[in-house]
Amino acid sequence: MATLNELAELIGGTVVGDGSVTIKRMAPFDTAGPGDITFVANPKYLAKLKDTTASAVIIKPGTECPGVSLLVCNNPYLAFAKVLTALHVQRPEPQGVMEGALVDHSAQLGADVTIHPGCVIGKNVRIGRGTILYPGVVVYDGGEIGEDCLVHAGVLVREQCRIGDRVVVQPGAVIGSDGFGFAPDGKSYYKIPQIGIVVIEDDVEVGSNVCIDRAAMGVTLIKRGAKIDNLVQIAHNVTIGEDTILVAQVGIAGSSEVGNHCTIGGQAGLAGHIKIGDNTMVAAQSGIISDLPAGRVVSGTPSMPHKDWLRASAGVKNLPAMRKTINSLQKRIEELEKLVKER
Amino acid sequence: MATLNELAELIGGTVVGDGSVTIKRMAPFDTAGPGDITFVANPKYLAKLKDTTASAVIIKPGTECPGVSLLVCNNPYLAFAKVLTALHVQRPEPQGVMEGALVDHSAQLGADVTIHPGCVIGKNVRIGRGTILYPGVVVYDGGEIGEDCLVHAGVLVREQCRIGDRVVVQPGAVIGSDGFGFAPDGKSYYKIPQIGIVVIEDDVEVGSNVCIDRAAMGVTLIKRGAKIDNLVQIAHNVTIGEDTILVAQVGIAGSSEVGNHCTIGGQAGLAGHIKIGDNTMVAAQSGIISDLPAGRVVSGTPSMPHKDWLRASAGVKNLPAMRKTINSLQKRIEELEKLVKER
Amino acid sequence: MATLNELAELIGGTVVGDGSVTIKRMAPFDTAGPGDITFVANPKYLAKLKDTTASAVIIKPGTECPGVSLLVCNNPYLAFAKVLTALHVQRPEPQGVMEGALVDHSAQLGADVTIHPGCVIGKNVRIGRGTILYPGVVVYDGGEIGEDCLVHAGVLVREQCRIGDRVVVQPGAVIGSDGFGFAPDGKSYYKIPQIGIVVIEDDVEVGSNVCIDRAAMGVTLIKRGAKIDNLVQIAHNVTIGEDTILVAQVGIAGSSEVGNHCTIGGQAGLAGHIKIGDNTMVAAQSGIISDLPAGRVVSGTPSMPHKDWLRASAGVKNLPAMRKTINSLQKRIEELEKLVKER
Repeated sequence: MATLNELAELIGGTVVGDGSVTIKRMAPFDTAGPGDITFVANPKYLAKLKDTTASAVIIKPGTECPGVSLLVCNNPYLAFAKVLTALHVQRPEPQGVMEGALVDHSAQLGADVTIHPGCVIGKNVRIGRGTILYPGVVVYDGGEIGEDCLVHAGVLVREQCRIGDRVVVQPGAVIGSDGFGFAPDGKSYYKIPQIGIVVIEDDVEVGSNVCIDRAAMGVTLIKRGAKIDNLVQIAHNVTIGEDTILVAQVGIAGSSEVGNHCTIGGQAGLAGHIKIGDNTMVAAQSGIISDLPAGRVVSGTPSMPHKDWLRASAGVKNLPAMRKTINSLQKRIEELEKLVKER
Repeated sequence: MATLNELAELIGGTVVGDGSVTIKRMAPFDTAGPGDITFVANPKYLAKLKDTTASAVIIKPGTECPGVSLLVCNNPYLAFAKVLTALHVQRPEPQGVMEGALVDHSAQLGADVTIHPGCVIGKNVRIGRGTILYPGVVVYDGGEIGEDCLVHAGVLVREQCRIGDRVVVQPGAVIGSDGFGFAPDGKSYYKIPQIGIVVIEDDVEVGSNVCIDRAAMGVTLIKRGAKIDNLVQIAHNVTIGEDTILVAQVGIAGSSEVGNHCTIGGQAGLAGHIKIGDNTMVAAQSGIISDLPAGRVVSGTPSMPHKDWLRASAGVKNLPAMRKTINSLQKRIEELEKLVKER
Repeated sequence: MATLNELAELIGGTVVGDGSVTIKRMAPFDTAGPGDITFVANPKYLAKLKDTTASAVIIKPGTECPGVSLLVCNNPYLAFAKVLTALHVQRPEPQGVMEGALVDHSAQLGADVTIHPGCVIGKNVRIGRGTILYPGVVVYDGGEIGEDCLVHAGVLVREQCRIGDRVVVQPGAVIGSDGFGFAPDGKSYYKIPQIGIVVIEDDVEVGSNVCIDRAAMGVTLIKRGAKIDNLVQIAHNVTIGEDTILVAQVGIAGSSEVGNHCTIGGQAGLAGHIKIGDNTMVAAQSGIISDLPAGRVVSGTPSMPHKDWLRASAGVKNLPAMRKTINSLQKRIEELEKLVKER
């Protein structure tokens, strides 16, 4: 609960209308009513703006609507996220080590941690101040988790892996499983021990049932601010750049390096030992099999510039028609050849 | 164990032969012997029917086989499923809250529930009559699970999410993890709190290690009777229709809506904010990037009618040959042009 | 820690140089220094060999480098794996049933097992000598795990499933969830009970969050030495051959059979009821929809020989150009037809 003026101060915006109104919650535009704040991103809602009964609307500069209180700001989507956080997110009170949690006596726990029932914390583990481990989290010996993290139920962190501050890990994610490495001995395979670790830097989000393998030697590295959606596979010795987004079910093979500020679309796959430059966008379901310089927008398997892919895909659809055209051309040429030779 | 007459009554079928024979178990046709019931779906087995030593055979009307007891019905596959259930599925005796389960005192448990060791049940959780939670299930505060559900080991249900009656959840599934939503602030991303929930209606099956994200606001909805295979990703605010089948490793991006009675093949992907009509079939590995009307059968990325895709795919395979044809036509035209101009 | 001579004996190699030097650890070539052993696989490092300060280098026969101690062997990569194991892998001391583990009194535990806190072991389960179950492993009634296995945190093994000796299961894997089988009853689906099991033979590796479904009837079979990467889906009644490799996120539909010594690339999908011969290689993201004889190397959806796929893919990329060529040929033919007819 906050006044509109307070919210404006929070997001660095301007109130047009009654700033003293009390805002209780965020609501979608269609259902927002008194006590609600909502936001208009989609222009189709602008026409409906005058009919809203919401107590306030977050909106870009340049819109006027007498009778409706506006919270005007340059980035309404970001403001929406911040107001939503202010109104709806309340960090639970710290509970310490709860009954039914098993914490090794050598573990070092920061102030104000919460370790829920069913957690198992190994030897020499370090958990930072304010971090919450939900039920069933397992941290193997020597694991480290920073401050103010949320580690959801059933997350499994293997030995020596390190997680930074303000990291959110969704349920069931696995951090530090063995990389997939085997040496052929002529007939079968001999397991290559995976003695490296995983390092996850600050402000990363890891989705549910994600798998991040530990390095063979060295480090599998997820850099600051990377956001990883559900069911993503990250193989050993991969590096994911800062503020890079991996959408659900992406797979990245061993030793590949993804730059900063990239977006890799859902179900896309990256081969091993390749390097993707900064600010690259890879479309969903693409297969990347070689290096990509910075700033590319690519699609397909093997990938090509996205606009080429759009034309090539249209071409694939038209292949049967093209086949017919070619057959007809062939016949006309035969006819012409006959005519010309006859003369 | 049941007599053939009892099984006939159960499935609404007719006995041809000795209905008093005792049936102990279901067995595959090739290995079925005395005491076994089996079923013939594949016509290639009809010729072998007279040689079976099975005590009974489930079969469509119109087949005769003196000396073999037949259980005749219009839908043998459905009858097979029902007989298999009758002979082989026995719900375990309710055990209540078992030693090693941690249930908050505010939780409401129906009659005849079983809460296995290692489960952690939060505040104000409701578990319906007859439901079984296998070891290691976690239900966050305010979660609800209906009656006669089977929730397998390691399933993680986050806060406020609601599951209906007779729902089966395979091990390791995650219900209600945060949707993947971030607002760019110019350099990095600001997490958008995901304050919605997941609602799973009655008679749904959820596969192992499936991820169903909670809505940003509102509800991610899995409607009655939907069947979701392993490792499927369902993003925030998605709706899955009644009796719709999602095969393994499907991914559905945010806010998309899949109709009733659809089948989405394995590893297929659906973009966000699209709508798939009822009775649609999407082939495995397809990529759907825009709305589909009801009743379509589509394949490919981007998708096209399945029969077009078959021809287009054949065309892709023949592209090198087509290239050669075009080159040869080109030469013949050059030759003709020379000849015609010379005259 | 071992002398170079001891390591040479271990791997069946030859020392060139000082065999008495003490080796403490394996290190990557670029960072290896005194006390380290490293290995050269990439020829680009051969030129740098003389500059290394590593105490020893594993290398193929035929290389000389005065002043550097060499461990010469025919398969350096295998030797690397064995030396890495010798220097870095130490099996933890057996701990028995640890505090916080819940083991049914009817379970049979071999000597020297370790059952970590949070494990739940059902009725009549058998765990072989020397096996380690990390925290949160659940084994349902009647499950069997062989000797010297490593079963990592959060692994869920359902009823009656059997795992052989020296099997490694990474965190979060699900063994024996219900196969995905439903009989249409005209409107909805009726669940087909899955009464079969999963059998995993000796020396198999199962990746994190992998799903292996139990058979409808009979067995889902993972044969000796198969290696399964993270997030792979194996449906009911599948057979995976000996020493076959399934890379991450592969999906294999019901009743299909993959031969021995195959490699299925990441994110590839196999349709149900097909048979893949021995020694087959399937490229990443391929879709296999029919049987493949032994020894094939295939790519694409639907798949074709890999070298055909390379040419076909190049053809797809050039489709817009081909379209233009055809249009121009068409015009030239029209022109010719006009000319020829005029005469």
